[in-house]
Amino acid sequence: MPREYACTLARMSIVVQKYGGTSVADADRIKAVAARAVATQKVGKDVVVVVSAMGKSTDELITLASEVTDNSHPREMDMLLTAGERISMALVAMAIEDHGVGSMSLTGSQAGILTTVEHGHAEIIGIRGDRVREGLNEGKIVIVAGFQGFSPETRDVTTLGRGGSDATAVALAATLDAEVCEIYTDVDGVFTADPRVVPGARKLEDVSFEEMLEMAAAGAGVLMARSVEFGRRYNIPIHVRSSFHGGPGTWVKEETMEEAIIRGVAHDASEAKVTVHGVPDQPGLAAQLFDPLAQAGISVDMIVQNVSLQGVTDISFTVPRSDLDMAQKVSESTAAEIGAAGVDVDHNIAKVSLVGAGMKDELGIAAKMFRILAEHGVNIEMISTSPIRISCVVRGDDVGAAVRGVHDGFSLGDDQESAENG
Amino acid sequence: MPREYACTLARMSIVVQKYGGTSVADADRIKAVAARAVATQKVGKDVVVVVSAMGKSTDELITLASEVTDNSHPREMDMLLTAGERISMALVAMAIEDHGVGSMSLTGSQAGILTTVEHGHAEIIGIRGDRVREGLNEGKIVIVAGFQGFSPETRDVTTLGRGGSDATAVALAATLDAEVCEIYTDVDGVFTADPRVVPGARKLEDVSFEEMLEMAAAGAGVLMARSVEFGRRYNIPIHVRSSFHGGPGTWVKEETMEEAIIRGVAHDASEAKVTVHGVPDQPGLAAQLFDPLAQAGISVDMIVQNVSLQGVTDISFTVPRSDLDMAQKVSESTAAEIGAAGVDVDHNIAKVSLVGAGMKDELGIAAKMFRILAEHGVNIEMISTSPIRISCVVRGDDVGAAVRGVHDGFSLGDDQESAENG
Repeated sequence: MPREYACTLARMSIVVQKYGGTSVADADRIKAVAARAVATQKVGKDVVVVVSAMGKSTDELITLASEVTDNSHPREMDMLLTAGERISMALVAMAIEDHGVGSMSLTGSQAGILTTVEHGHAEIIGIRGDRVREGLNEGKIVIVAGFQGFSPETRDVTTLGRGGSDATAVALAATLDAEVCEIYTDVDGVFTADPRVVPGARKLEDVSFEEMLEMAAAGAGVLMARSVEFGRRYNIPIHVRSSFHGGPGTWVKEETMEEAIIRGVAHDASEAKVTVHGVPDQPGLAAQLFDPLAQAGISVDMIVQNVSLQGVTDISFTVPRSDLDMAQKVSESTAAEIGAAGVDVDHNIAKVSLVGAGMKDELGIAAKMFRILAEHGVNIEMISTSPIRISCVVRGDDVGAAVRGVHDGFSLGDDQESAENG
Repeated sequence: MPREYACTLARMSIVVQKYGGTSVADADRIKAVAARAVATQKVGKDVVVVVSAMGKSTDELITLASEVTDNSHPREMDMLLTAGERISMALVAMAIEDHGVGSMSLTGSQAGILTTVEHGHAEIIGIRGDRVREGLNEGKIVIVAGFQGFSPETRDVTTLGRGGSDATAVALAATLDAEVCEIYTDVDGVFTADPRVVPGARKLEDVSFEEMLEMAAAGAGVLMARSVEFGRRYNIPIHVRSSFHGGPGTWVKEETMEEAIIRGVAHDASEAKVTVHGVPDQPGLAAQLFDPLAQAGISVDMIVQNVSLQGVTDISFTVPRSDLDMAQKVSESTAAEIGAAGVDVDHNIAKVSLVGAGMKDELGIAAKMFRILAEHGVNIEMISTSPIRISCVVRGDDVGAAVRGVHDGFSLGDDQESAENG
């Protein structure tokens, strides 16, 4: 991403604010977004606002398409869906102008958001941003459509897929050398665990990029990994905060103030498990198993291979539940080819992960987690670890008990800040 | 409009089809549009489809804006409204692809529709059309958003105002040197009078550009004058036809087959009359009266000045009823300045016009029209004429009787084709 414009002017510091669909769901919320953007400008910031489509409008457009066609039309679907942000961004710009402040909305193309050509899940490859800078230099609050860009190769409009608006905001913040990218959402920030599962979960003041990446990958839905990765790469602090009140949320940044060993517990109940039984234990068979899955576009998360007994082994892996049917089909075909005994699938699993940068320097964290799960009667089916994360696959029905047990066991909650987590 | 591409290739002849909001109002109608476009391609034509926004969706977007703001935001309103065609054009392209035919939707910007900068009522100043030609050369049916373009001066999206999609279609047809521009609508074509007023009104097989221009200006709503003017200037035949059946409609073109003296009766009940009384009859006073109206953006239609009596005169003129309050205010201010006696306004008027190219060579048409109106007890308040049109302002309550009387009197109906109108 080019940063040649950064620091060439004694410009005011830039704040990028991203508002999701819930935050622009109706006229009153749009006016609240405008008021907040104007207030931010009033304290001396240059403000860029990135918006998603209003409320459920993207779903409504998808329904409209499904009434017309049963087939996939990737280019035209992107043309259709990008109407959504066009509507919300124009309305936000109007509401800002009503404060007597200049404003200008820009589509992904107009803002120069360059992407790859993959319709529906394009990746940002660069941001020109000239018109954004021009608008800021004219004293305007610039509104940019999230989730969309265009491919310089085909000159076609593209969308970025899940979490796309966050990615737009953080990438724009990086291009503009913003002081912060604020992600406004319907929760108060990043918590030590999902508050719907753990009532005593505590809002984190800050969390490192690395920890947030692991938490996002482990199922913490508040931020997608791709946005955090942008923030990490260009060192743009991300402030995740509520669009309903002005209080601070959670800062995602390079250095954290609170040097906790454990940051939080994430869980993910959206995956399923596939087990291939009786795989002949020969070199190259794993590749034969996973290559066809990759070619089918299936993202495999955890993989566990059992100890080989009598020349055969079992291989288990997890995939998004939405891909399970395809994964089963592909795996059964491969199993037949390589002479494996058979394929089992299991819908009823969940993944519980403990994340914390301090884990690297502290022994016994994994052992403690396993002990806590056992004490709560939770059986562990698969385990995977990174230097700052431990993930366990458990029965789907056990996920609440597992998350609450681990959260309590590591004293992550509000009123129990122990020495262990000081 | 550049035509440098015309005839440089031995290309197939091009048909531009324009579908209004009613024709793309739901999934079934969108599929019907797709089927018709594909059928047209199957008989060997290159097909370009121009679409309006679905049904009432433009009104819905305007309502949304009115919930957010009471003020005028011309640039952002255009950004908002252009979401409408984006949705319909993507859906039409999907439905075409479902026939196994390549398709591609293009926004006004992508199609290179260059306009002036006046948001909400921009004028087309040129069409690049490169991507349209590329799409046709690849065998695709190209869908272009009607009603919208962009200003090369500001690089902003613009809309063309009332009748804008028709203008897009005819201008595109001119640029592409199309063999015909088909305007699909919810009526069967152009009639000798409004069938809702005159049940015996006859559908015209053809009508000249000049006649259609006069009829459009006189209130025939089926085509706006700006589209007819494009057709006339570049000699692109316009076929106005029904989107509900395949039968022929009305051809608007240079030469008509049927050399009728009178083509039809148009009426317009959307205007109101302003009369300035006791205007001192001195040179330059008319300019003093009408300059401020022009500056206020009020379009004055008919003007009649009475014979001067004792150095003072009355001046009456008609304006769109929506502009009446403003016209009254401006005129009262001018009347005070120039020492006129006062200003009257009259909401309850209507204009009845007789249009026909043969009128030029035939004496007594006006006299016959006046006599017919008198026989039906209709009083004439104002008269204006062009070489091929006579318009009379009558009481609003008399408009039905006036239109039916003139239509019958000139034998314009289905089963009464007289020698006079042969």
